[in-house]
Amino acid sequence: MSWQPPIDETHDPVRESWVESANDAATDFPIQNLPLGVFTRRRGGDGAPRIGAAIGNRVVDVRAAAEAGLLAGLSAAALEVLRSWTLNAYMNLAPDERGTVRRSLGAFLDARTLAPRRQALSHLVSMADVDLHVPSSIGDYTDFYASIHHATNVGSMFRPDSPLLPNYKFVPIGYHGRSSSIVASGTPVRRPAGQARPEGAVTPSFGPSTRLDYELEVGAFAGPGNQLGTPVAVGSAERHLAGLCLVNDWSARDVQQWEYQPLGPFLAKSFATTVSPWVVTLEALAPFRVPAFERPDGDPPPLPYLESTANRASGGFDLTLEVLLSSRRMREAGCPPARLSRSHLSTMYWTFAQLVAHHTSNGCNLRAGDLLASGTVSGPSEDARGCLLELTWRGQRPVTLPTGETRAFLEDGDEVLMRGWCAREGYRRIGFGECRGTVAPAAPTT
Amino acid sequence: MSWQPPIDETHDPVRESWVESANDAATDFPIQNLPLGVFTRRRGGDGAPRIGAAIGNRVVDVRAAAEAGLLAGLSAAALEVLRSWTLNAYMNLAPDERGTVRRSLGAFLDARTLAPRRQALSHLVSMADVDLHVPSSIGDYTDFYASIHHATNVGSMFRPDSPLLPNYKFVPIGYHGRSSSIVASGTPVRRPAGQARPEGAVTPSFGPSTRLDYELEVGAFAGPGNQLGTPVAVGSAERHLAGLCLVNDWSARDVQQWEYQPLGPFLAKSFATTVSPWVVTLEALAPFRVPAFERPDGDPPPLPYLESTANRASGGFDLTLEVLLSSRRMREAGCPPARLSRSHLSTMYWTFAQLVAHHTSNGCNLRAGDLLASGTVSGPSEDARGCLLELTWRGQRPVTLPTGETRAFLEDGDEVLMRGWCAREGYRRIGFGECRGTVAPAAPTT
Repeated sequence: MSWQPPIDETHDPVRESWVESANDAATDFPIQNLPLGVFTRRRGGDGAPRIGAAIGNRVVDVRAAAEAGLLAGLSAAALEVLRSWTLNAYMNLAPDERGTVRRSLGAFLDARTLAPRRQALSHLVSMADVDLHVPSSIGDYTDFYASIHHATNVGSMFRPDSPLLPNYKFVPIGYHGRSSSIVASGTPVRRPAGQARPEGAVTPSFGPSTRLDYELEVGAFAGPGNQLGTPVAVGSAERHLAGLCLVNDWSARDVQQWEYQPLGPFLAKSFATTVSPWVVTLEALAPFRVPAFERPDGDPPPLPYLESTANRASGGFDLTLEVLLSSRRMREAGCPPARLSRSHLSTMYWTFAQLVAHHTSNGCNLRAGDLLASGTVSGPSEDARGCLLELTWRGQRPVTLPTGETRAFLEDGDEVLMRGWCAREGYRRIGFGECRGTVAPAAPTT
Repeated sequence: MSWQPPIDETHDPVRESWVESANDAATDFPIQNLPLGVFTRRRGGDGAPRIGAAIGNRVVDVRAAAEAGLLAGLSAAALEVLRSWTLNAYMNLAPDERGTVRRSLGAFLDARTLAPRRQALSHLVSMADVDLHVPSSIGDYTDFYASIHHATNVGSMFRPDSPLLPNYKFVPIGYHGRSSSIVASGTPVRRPAGQARPEGAVTPSFGPSTRLDYELEVGAFAGPGNQLGTPVAVGSAERHLAGLCLVNDWSARDVQQWEYQPLGPFLAKSFATTVSPWVVTLEALAPFRVPAFERPDGDPPPLPYLESTANRASGGFDLTLEVLLSSRRMREAGCPPARLSRSHLSTMYWTFAQLVAHHTSNGCNLRAGDLLASGTVSGPSEDARGCLLELTWRGQRPVTLPTGETRAFLEDGDEVLMRGWCAREGYRRIGFGECRGTVAPAAPTT
């Protein structure tokens, strides 16, 4: 019943690609990674979105390569779904079927392959020449709250008397997010307007948010769904996941504080959510599995429906995450983006397998391409806080940028850049690419 | 800028149809209504979902009638969208274009039309011979909390010290719901399992919900969407609505109470939401517009972005709603369903136009086919409470059924039946059809 992808020869660190840039130690996309995404060519092509695979600084036009007969060993089902303009049908394949895509791409791109190189090259595009899109049509987007450090920090600001609510260690807290406003990395994010009630005021006012924030998260795309009414057991939960990405869950803190009772965040979040465009497969991440978070003594064990041997042993991912910020003045001065924090997915209180098991425990159905996000990934230390609300402690301790500018919350023109990667001795580094977004000024209000 | 459909000759109460059952005073579907839906034939046909229109006890196969040339005056765009197997493309039409469908269907079905009846009849199916489906592919489902009576009742149970939170009269409170588990009327609803912490217990346990409830709501389907980042003004909000339906927002109260802090309802609601299958257009509802809820003295006026002259004058709908319950024993004894409550959409604190303006005020984009639900429609009187939580006051005052059975919350085998209609002197009654669902036993838990 229990299932996780194994480590196999596709992870062999000595494998190289004939795409030279994939062999660079610093690349996010060595031949051991091979994430899929959806792209359009900026020049030429028919303008239609197509499925691509990242390799070094190139994108493989997967459909074209497959149709040219260059991807050997693909099942008929895999061949069919790669013709789509979203990854939903691919995600809906059983893990073994999806695995044929990874193996076939790996064989095609392997330096040892005596492929007709000239023909192969015609199916590669430079990363600089493509636009990358949200990889699936996301039916439902769920956002969790799986970092106990984040929950404790935020709780202590909003509810100093009870920072961590009594349900936290039992319930993987989550809420439904907005699918329509999920955008791909690079899309500008307009500062939202909304209601807020300033401290001390009796009535709220409506206007552009003055407390715009990012949230550093990791997203999991659903693989094959479950039937409505049929829960997924935690041990087999990962069969229902197709891969991971980075997520910036932009948040208007002033709007959030005023609106969130009693039904949770709504307009404070629904104006935009940015995802990184490459879906890093669980297969590629196999060498980087770590035990689920070890609960400190005194914490209750998970209820049985959230507990399995496999999950305890290797439900986590040793994934390092960073947030960087670049202000307009920094860019004008030629400063590189400044790192604001670094944290680790392995510090989360709940694993993705537990989130899937909880989500479906009431019979709720997942559909291939759905997005489940972790919630803000904050660690125990101050430099591991995954949003400005925590980093600046509600704006009271602004951060200083290289230009001397300070930030309590985001200003117009600020670019937020998130990165993530897995690294382990004896394996090639597996990167997630970037999740970027620049704050655009609010729309004029009437 | 301001827009609402007018009353015109399509509402003329003396118009009759050559479909006799449409002329029955009790029908939900006279020729003045003409709601659209999506159906499959139980016998014959190709098994594919098709767009239909309700007329008396018949369904017009709209696509077939259009292709046979029986629907005169349809625009090319309208003709195209009627070939779809969902109503999304139809809903995405501008109101004027959608209006051509209503007029054309009305002309086709009018008793005065000298249509080739034999040919026309071949495109009609008995309601008894079709299955009706969720009418659109719902990208996002938003559930509001627009009844101040419901909010006050529920608030006084969960937060006796502050029943109505300070934001209620300013913010049209809402949250994102789950799209994947929205089902059409008639689909059995399996009792969900979940975590709950019984009163007095320290730790929660996991098992079938013992406090399963319904919520009587009205849904609005989004018409043409707005661009991400571009709010919709309240005065033109109704251009972005395609029609209304009934919604049963099934709720597991024990799960809800334990999970809902701090991010709102999640698994307590996401196991199923039932919608009635016919989309009643704003055009059909034009004669039944009423002023927005008149706020009692002392209540603050809506903030300017939620206020318009048209909304104040006629933002509401005089729509009567009923919930009925039929237990298994009642059905075995031949008892008709027993009415539990009756309420009116006109008692809601916020109108749909205000909900749309609020929803998009942060730039959030609506897409055609999205569903916005009102929240439980409860009125000021005890017999106008739209859920068992309120009716039985958290289970403390069970209701008695005709068989002598009592209900604090729903039992397996209970069928919940919702109805809605508009009636006004000088106009034909416009009905919504039924929103039904029967509670099936919980799945075996592992």
